[in-house]
Amino acid sequence: MELGLLYSGGKDSTLAALLLEDFYDVTLVTGHFGVTDDWEHARAAADAVGFDHERLSLSEAAATEAVDRMVADGFPRNGIQAVHEHALERLAASEFDAIADGTRRDDRVPTVSRAQAQSLEDRHDVDYIAPLSGFGRGAVDRLVDDALDVTVGPSESIPRADYEAELRVLLRDEHGEGAVRDVFPAHDQTYVEGPR
Amino acid sequence: MELGLLYSGGKDSTLAALLLEDFYDVTLVTGHFGVTDDWEHARAAADAVGFDHERLSLSEAAATEAVDRMVADGFPRNGIQAVHEHALERLAASEFDAIADGTRRDDRVPTVSRAQAQSLEDRHDVDYIAPLSGFGRGAVDRLVDDALDVTVGPSESIPRADYEAELRVLLRDEHGEGAVRDVFPAHDQTYVEGPR
Repeated sequence: MELGLLYSGGKDSTLAALLLEDFYDVTLVTGHFGVTDDWEHARAAADAVGFDHERLSLSEAAATEAVDRMVADGFPRNGIQAVHEHALERLAASEFDAIADGTRRDDRVPTVSRAQAQSLEDRHDVDYIAPLSGFGRGAVDRLVDDALDVTVGPSESIPRADYEAELRVLLRDEHGEGAVRDVFPAHDQTYVEGPR
Repeated sequence: MELGLLYSGGKDSTLAALLLEDFYDVTLVTGHFGVTDDWEHARAAADAVGFDHERLSLSEAAATEAVDRMVADGFPRNGIQAVHEHALERLAASEFDAIADGTRRDDRVPTVSRAQAQSLEDRHDVDYIAPLSGFGRGAVDRLVDDALDVTVGPSESIPRADYEAELRVLLRDEHGEGAVRDVFPAHDQTYVEGPR
């Protein structure tokens, strides 16, 4: 069975791929809005861990809506959630038998409820799988330590390809540098260099 | 890391073991109340799929309480849930670094909430993992078809070692054959014969 996994180049989505690779033909899929080339960081990480990689075109209108929402809210959560749901819809509508993402049990955003999962599956005749949703943060961190060579650093300086990089650029272009600092407080991110 | 997985010999807990085997030293663990020798069916299934197997002693008082609850309710759900929680507590208190079970996203019983999972982890300094909780019924069935040789049949005639077999005997002994039929309507179960 062909499975497409939403992929950022970070540790969670990479671990999700490793959990599924014995059971599916896994392709790592990175959503992008056409704003920057940050998806290339995800391709490099996918190459380093030895998976096929594809780009998935996301709607720039969805990005603009998300950015406006973030500015109105003063925090990124709802905007990121909306973008993730948009990406899952696009991925579910593509040719894969199954789709997946790297959401964990303890994630606050993005989250996919059981009802949302069932709705995706029913409307698109696809299996939706969240292989890390049964793992807590501690378990994920221990498995990543065992399996992956990871770089950790401040969010703005780590090369990766979650929605944040492109949304930051749109946010700055449309609302100014202050809006980026207001919406995204400093936090660390990870980038996968390859297997250990 | 040493992981103990609650194991019935059925397809869900066997698939859970296969999902985890690249990441943990997995031991399949079957809870039993000392009422019957049905745990031996789980050991045979564990041998067939090539995993280590242990028994886990459960409290007969917990079984009697569960059976009384089932008779009072007229259905098994709450009794099965209580027994599963008891088994997880016992397993969490043993020597494993991580514990797991075969609960799926769409299971109605047993279920382990995020709060219950976190509580188990905090109180016992252990990781609790539900590897199938990100998989729906359709995805599990398709993976099982690919990976396992399974026998399906009516619940009362399939040799397996979930709590049901022992609870049925206790129920009959304490409340009569009619109580068994009242509490457990006819349904199919699966038993894993081995890998495909």
